[in-house]
Amino acid sequence: VTLRVLAAALTIVLAATCWPAQDALPASTNVPGTDYPRIHPDRRVSFRLKAPAATSVKLQTLSDGLGKGPIDFKRDEAGNWNLTIGPVRPGFHYYAFLVDGVQVNDPASETFFGWGRESSGIEVPAKDLDFYDLKDVPHGDVHIHAYRSGSLGTFRSAYVYTPPGYDANRSKRYPVLYLQHGAGESERAWTKQGKANLILDNLIAAGKAKPMILVMENGYATSVRDNRAGISIREAFDKLVSQELIWNIDSSYRTLADKDNRAIAGLSMGGGEAIYTGLKHADLFSWVAGMSGGTQLLDLVPGEAGRAVALRFLKLLWLGYGTEDGGYPAAVKVHRDLEPKHVPHVWFETSGSHEWQVWRKCLYELAQRLFR
Amino acid sequence: VTLRVLAAALTIVLAATCWPAQDALPASTNVPGTDYPRIHPDRRVSFRLKAPAATSVKLQTLSDGLGKGPIDFKRDEAGNWNLTIGPVRPGFHYYAFLVDGVQVNDPASETFFGWGRESSGIEVPAKDLDFYDLKDVPHGDVHIHAYRSGSLGTFRSAYVYTPPGYDANRSKRYPVLYLQHGAGESERAWTKQGKANLILDNLIAAGKAKPMILVMENGYATSVRDNRAGISIREAFDKLVSQELIWNIDSSYRTLADKDNRAIAGLSMGGGEAIYTGLKHADLFSWVAGMSGGTQLLDLVPGEAGRAVALRFLKLLWLGYGTEDGGYPAAVKVHRDLEPKHVPHVWFETSGSHEWQVWRKCLYELAQRLFR
Repeated sequence: VTLRVLAAALTIVLAATCWPAQDALPASTNVPGTDYPRIHPDRRVSFRLKAPAATSVKLQTLSDGLGKGPIDFKRDEAGNWNLTIGPVRPGFHYYAFLVDGVQVNDPASETFFGWGRESSGIEVPAKDLDFYDLKDVPHGDVHIHAYRSGSLGTFRSAYVYTPPGYDANRSKRYPVLYLQHGAGESERAWTKQGKANLILDNLIAAGKAKPMILVMENGYATSVRDNRAGISIREAFDKLVSQELIWNIDSSYRTLADKDNRAIAGLSMGGGEAIYTGLKHADLFSWVAGMSGGTQLLDLVPGEAGRAVALRFLKLLWLGYGTEDGGYPAAVKVHRDLEPKHVPHVWFETSGSHEWQVWRKCLYELAQRLFR
Repeated sequence: VTLRVLAAALTIVLAATCWPAQDALPASTNVPGTDYPRIHPDRRVSFRLKAPAATSVKLQTLSDGLGKGPIDFKRDEAGNWNLTIGPVRPGFHYYAFLVDGVQVNDPASETFFGWGRESSGIEVPAKDLDFYDLKDVPHGDVHIHAYRSGSLGTFRSAYVYTPPGYDANRSKRYPVLYLQHGAGESERAWTKQGKANLILDNLIAAGKAKPMILVMENGYATSVRDNRAGISIREAFDKLVSQELIWNIDSSYRTLADKDNRAIAGLSMGGGEAIYTGLKHADLFSWVAGMSGGTQLLDLVPGEAGRAVALRFLKLLWLGYGTEDGGYPAAVKVHRDLEPKHVPHVWFETSGSHEWQVWRKCLYELAQRLFR
């Protein structure tokens, strides 16, 4: 037995130190022509930064999936700082480097708006999942749709996914899912980090989801005046959606412009926005979903009429959570409390924490149930 | 006179040292909620980076318009590194920070793909120009159009601008301008750095340009096999455009699918790609333009038949250059040599060097002449 343990330990040490570099591949989220970060077949990740004059380089992990940071790099003789971590969880993870204490991007990574800034990100492949892969199926377009908000007095930009065939079928109209990002992110997050367009392309190609339009706006819509008046982010966004965005989308795209063909969903902060706005406007939405957020809004106290009434008019209330998310226990409690209150809803849970891989799975599950 | 000079000098010194900070505004290219970089009314720019542990911070100017770098920041007692430069030229400029010798992004800036990586960028307003401003006119959509290239065996993504009214006028067909970025940039550059969509929105609203579709692809289309065979970037891109992209666009969008309604233009490396492909396929393009690039391809030697013949079939050969561009003198020579060869063309020159402000002006001029 002792020999076996020694042999196993030796194998691990050898694998960790001598793994042939050619088995590790540059991440798909790298900018073209860069060798690092590299992902090993066992999902370890190697980072490298050339910084001969730096005295300290650390990895700042900005997603649970990469483990706890900051983690020190080691400098080699050529002035490269190297670090291998993991195995890490599959999916998309934000990260940054700390160069002599300053949080900066990895110059080798594409950037992804999260944490209130353009952050580095890494896509770690999941061998057993392909629902968000770019496949050889018909693809919808993502439109960067500029419009003017009269109430905010500013121009806004929504990302709008139109399903495959939208341009060819010139009279067909489609249902719409309004889909919100989380705190510190932007209207670009659901397609760039979340691959929402690819998830829908694949579902539609497989006949598992109805062709639909996705509208992804920026959840921050607080004007200077709103700020002074103490209007919350959620209320400001509600005003934008209910008074301007829906009207703009319905007049710009071939939508089915009624509540039974309109859904709203979001993740984290966006989950709160979706549930708040969805239940405030029972005349606008029949399908409401929160992913890793917003569940607390359903913790209805006796006598609270509005949301309870709105819930009766819904075709679907959908709630999703990662089981390792800090908010999971409280959300489960709300979910269980909804049963005796006879509030029908779908509860979805999956492994993972507060991370994009969970939200991709949420969208995959949710989209199959919408507009049926 | 001496007193006047002294007074003027004093005013300048006072303005430079005591200019009230509240007159300087955060750049439009900053991420939301950031105070720096700030642009002063006289177009000086102040940068700031909090980096208490760094021993050196410098500005790496990646555009002529910001002057020559690197330029040293000064550390204050709070650990902020500060630098004010300029006045700088109006327009869009790439930049980076050097933190203890490592080139990194300014965390306060949006990112723009240039120099082969996600770079920081700053938009410096031009008081006398508004042709690329976001105005209250009808806006076209920018589509992120995914498609599969059979020859490359990879998925590609083109940015496609459809003019205002494209969705409402369901039978109208439009001419197409293929528009290429420069070296180290990507298909996102013409809309993000160049504001091509806003330039077209404004021109179309003013009745100065025909409504048209813009197709912006990535000028790097060299496969691994091409690389091994020594196929140049230009030839690889030509193959993609002439054999796949045009067909894909004509079958995905409501185009006028003939040579008289198809133009190709590009800047710098993309100017070479545009002139090469435009003149190689006289059957595909009637309108060809090079901005700050590609002019050398027109330096036809006696006996060179192909391009000379192709030129006769063009409706427009358009060449534009910034007068401070390093390539300007050679380009002017080619332009002058074309006259005695009886090659009709339009020559456009404007102040500025190898920078986006020149290319915005080029597009503004060019678009007004196309498809007439």
